[in-house]
Amino acid sequence: EALHKISCIINGDRRKPVDCRTNGADVFIPFSFIEGYFEITGKVEVDKRSANDGRFFNWQHSYAKLVFPKLPYEPDGIFMAFDNYNVEVRDRVQHISPSEGVPVSSQWSANNKGHFYPIQISQFGLSHYSKNISEEQPRRHVVADFEKSEDMAVGDECRVDRIEDDDRASIVLNFTAPEDVSFPGISLISIPDTGDPHILFSVKFLSKGSVILKLDVQDRQRQNYELVYTSSNESIRVENHRIFYGVGSTGEWTHLVRDVYIDLLKGLNLHVRGKKDKIKLNVTRMRILEITLHGRGLLDDVVVQSTAHSELFYLAAEWLVKYQDEEGGWPIWVKRRLGEAELAPGWYSAMAQGQAMSTLTRAYKRTGQMKYLEAAVRALDLFKKPSSEGGITAVFMDKYEWYEEYPTTPSSFVLNGFIYALLGLYDVSHVSTGGYRKRARQLFDEGVVSLKALLPLFDTGSGSSYDLRHFTLKGAPNLARWDYHATHVTQLLVMNSIHPDPMFAEFAERWSDYMKGKRSEHN
Amino acid sequence: EALHKISCIINGDRRKPVDCRTNGADVFIPFSFIEGYFEITGKVEVDKRSANDGRFFNWQHSYAKLVFPKLPYEPDGIFMAFDNYNVEVRDRVQHISPSEGVPVSSQWSANNKGHFYPIQISQFGLSHYSKNISEEQPRRHVVADFEKSEDMAVGDECRVDRIEDDDRASIVLNFTAPEDVSFPGISLISIPDTGDPHILFSVKFLSKGSVILKLDVQDRQRQNYELVYTSSNESIRVENHRIFYGVGSTGEWTHLVRDVYIDLLKGLNLHVRGKKDKIKLNVTRMRILEITLHGRGLLDDVVVQSTAHSELFYLAAEWLVKYQDEEGGWPIWVKRRLGEAELAPGWYSAMAQGQAMSTLTRAYKRTGQMKYLEAAVRALDLFKKPSSEGGITAVFMDKYEWYEEYPTTPSSFVLNGFIYALLGLYDVSHVSTGGYRKRARQLFDEGVVSLKALLPLFDTGSGSSYDLRHFTLKGAPNLARWDYHATHVTQLLVMNSIHPDPMFAEFAERWSDYMKGKRSEHN
Ligand SMILES: [Ca+2]
Ligand SMILES: [Ca+2]
Repeated sequence: EALHKISCIINGDRRKPVDCRTNGADVFIPFSFIEGYFEITGKVEVDKRSANDGRFFNWQHSYAKLVFPKLPYEPDGIFMAFDNYNVEVRDRVQHISPSEGVPVSSQWSANNKGHFYPIQISQFGLSHYSKNISEEQPRRHVVADFEKSEDMAVGDECRVDRIEDDDRASIVLNFTAPEDVSFPGISLISIPDTGDPHILFSVKFLSKGSVILKLDVQDRQRQNYELVYTSSNESIRVENHRIFYGVGSTGEWTHLVRDVYIDLLKGLNLHVRGKKDKIKLNVTRMRILEITLHGRGLLDDVVVQSTAHSELFYLAAEWLVKYQDEEGGWPIWVKRRLGEAELAPGWYSAMAQGQAMSTLTRAYKRTGQMKYLEAAVRALDLFKKPSSEGGITAVFMDKYEWYEEYPTTPSSFVLNGFIYALLGLYDVSHVSTGGYRKRARQLFDEGVVSLKALLPLFDTGSGSSYDLRHFTLKGAPNLARWDYHATHVTQLLVMNSIHPDPMFAEFAERWSDYMKGKRSEHN
Repeated sequence: EALHKISCIINGDRRKPVDCRTNGADVFIPFSFIEGYFEITGKVEVDKRSANDGRFFNWQHSYAKLVFPKLPYEPDGIFMAFDNYNVEVRDRVQHISPSEGVPVSSQWSANNKGHFYPIQISQFGLSHYSKNISEEQPRRHVVADFEKSEDMAVGDECRVDRIEDDDRASIVLNFTAPEDVSFPGISLISIPDTGDPHILFSVKFLSKGSVILKLDVQDRQRQNYELVYTSSNESIRVENHRIFYGVGSTGEWTHLVRDVYIDLLKGLNLHVRGKKDKIKLNVTRMRILEITLHGRGLLDDVVVQSTAHSELFYLAAEWLVKYQDEEGGWPIWVKRRLGEAELAPGWYSAMAQGQAMSTLTRAYKRTGQMKYLEAAVRALDLFKKPSSEGGITAVFMDKYEWYEEYPTTPSSFVLNGFIYALLGLYDVSHVSTGGYRKRARQLFDEGVVSLKALLPLFDTGSGSSYDLRHFTLKGAPNLARWDYHATHVTQLLVMNSIHPDPMFAEFAERWSDYMKGKRSEHN
């Protein structure tokens, strides 16, 4: 078939004609133009099931995929579809705090100085909680518990013995080696070669000291790295192939749960600024060659595991208990700009409250420990405080209360953060009792009334709006990009599970259709 | 260049692959697919200015064209861009009433029974008013004023004489001829062959009678037609090539202003139901061969004109004065369904009130006649009456008053009708005095507050919403099709002229950009 070139004039703009083709019957438009004009994604792929060469062009209206939540939603079940999330691998997780075991965020922070972002920490916890349900139990190898003598390489000037430790009620390794890592130390050398990336150990530094993991990594090429967990207070530092994580406590037992892969990835990217320049690891094989001790201290229970979802979840819950303030909130210590509005460091977020509540109620349901429940119900306190007075609740047109992810002035009415807040309230209303239960239920019910009233205002007929700032700022809608739009759909499906309403089901269906290019009708 | 076929799988749907082409570097998508998927229009056109064959593909995001209003807006100037409108040619104008001289609407009416639709009548008036300003003065030929003897063909059994008429203070033709049109009548035969389609005459039937225009029309083929203006009360009737318009008054002088082309078009289409089946005339030449009289009566001032904008405008203004009811409104006598909501016959429309006010204030400014001003200010009365009680004003979220084009329950918050209401209020506030002026100004100001508050809710980021029914019905937005969207832009430009505000200018610019495929940003 003969195709001829024909110029396409787009909306009358003769300066930038598009190079099209025609066979007389139809005109063919280059996808390179469509892609930018409509923001469609597409690429040539090969269908291996096909008999002939199987090449086809895969046109995708939305680059994001809809992930269906696990339903029915339960206050102690998988959170939404968070079993698909890997929070720590995200660029905006700068590293995992060696002292707290939870993510340190680089988001919005000046000079790449990390900060503890409660939403990220809760999402880290909830994703591990959910994976702990959806995935199989981890493989677990005890490298050394020191209940018996272990194989070790002990350098000159080093000394080890096994002693009974009262705190741990267990026999532990008492080690003395040069603080300086350029001298020989004491090495555990019988590490199972399973490739499992999680290492757990308990350490009590009695002087400056360190625990060094020597790694043999097969990425694009084979490399040796050292992960150095030290008694320093400096959270993370990188020197060539040596990455230092400062545990920061001396004279106290510290229990570390580290994902070696993540600790390596974050170290390698610590000084990489541009999102595009970030190093992505594609590790095909990794081995912990040896674990070497320096300084004076005690060591116990060195374990290698395939995963550590349960342990990481409790680290997040622990952090929330430890850092909740007297208002029941988790202030966020970075400045946040939304257009013209600015939140000064120390702001609260209804989404942080909600996600923390969902984390804490799950920790309580699993352990029965009251500290988790107490923290969860204390998180209710901030809900009635207006966003204009440092709280988290805004009111739309003097009528509908809205729990603000970003309590800006003027209000922003972010949709996804509001629904996360509702889920937290729902969880507390099911897990708590008496007055707290009633309070949480009331806040939830009022929120649902607002959601049902305002949800249509987020519907653009071909997607959704991220917030209602266009109402408060009298400007253009801030359209939700596809991954946020997909989150909206997932959330509406969860809402329909906990508060069945045809409206939620219909919106979820229509909004998921938008991801396939369908639109609402015009008149 | 060699192009190969490649199958495009659209959003994973393998059942309906699209037949694309590739040259290895790019993939070419057929416009026949794009057209339906994105609702884009486009066609191959020829650029005559081009040196070579000049064929190009004209891609148009919006099928509607933006028409810029004449600015600054003045209460006695061109109304918006209505000088570009031709109301009577529209399908939903069934015919022009021979007794009232204004359009009869077929819209929403059962059994194709026409009704007087005040919005259509006002728009008819405002378009002629605007054209009277923008177009040159009409060519005018007096066929006969009977001040002297005229050439006539007088049949057997017919009698004519010229008599002084007191009402007209003029000499008129006194005619007597058989009522039956199959007998010879009295014919004026010296009709100028200018092709001008407007005929004006004054007639007083003293028995059953008729004035017949014999037409020679060159359309696709040459045809003879007869337009028969009779003393009957039957508004319109068609028998083959004979179209009857019943003036419906006996014993009274009636002044007719007829567009022969429109009277022919509406007659030919009277029994054509489907929009697609409507006959479109493409008249290249038309001649009024003769004007024939039957029955007994008086005739005066037979005139042929190229246009009759001024005359037609006053017919509309006259109708508004005559048919305004005791509430100051123009009830609409057809049932109107909007989704689930239904307006029973006799409903009022804020848009009808507004467009009538804009018509009446212009008639007053031109003539100084108080009847027009009095009707215009009486139209204010309905504005404070709630739509739920048979009035026209709804309230959005108990806060913002909205003048409803369709006062449905629940409310619909149609944008274009609301702005037309505002323009009417603006006109009255400038043309009236004292309490009325104050009242109109207050209604206008309150409306502007609502418009500024709610306008962002109509912005979809790629177009506009026709109304806010998605809010009241908790459903999908009712997107405005491109011609309504273009009207929104034109209206915002007018609003910015009468009430300058950067918001109106920005929305007008962004919304006009949407017509070229631009979108608001996503996050
Ligand atoms: Ca032990
Ligand atoms: Ca005369």
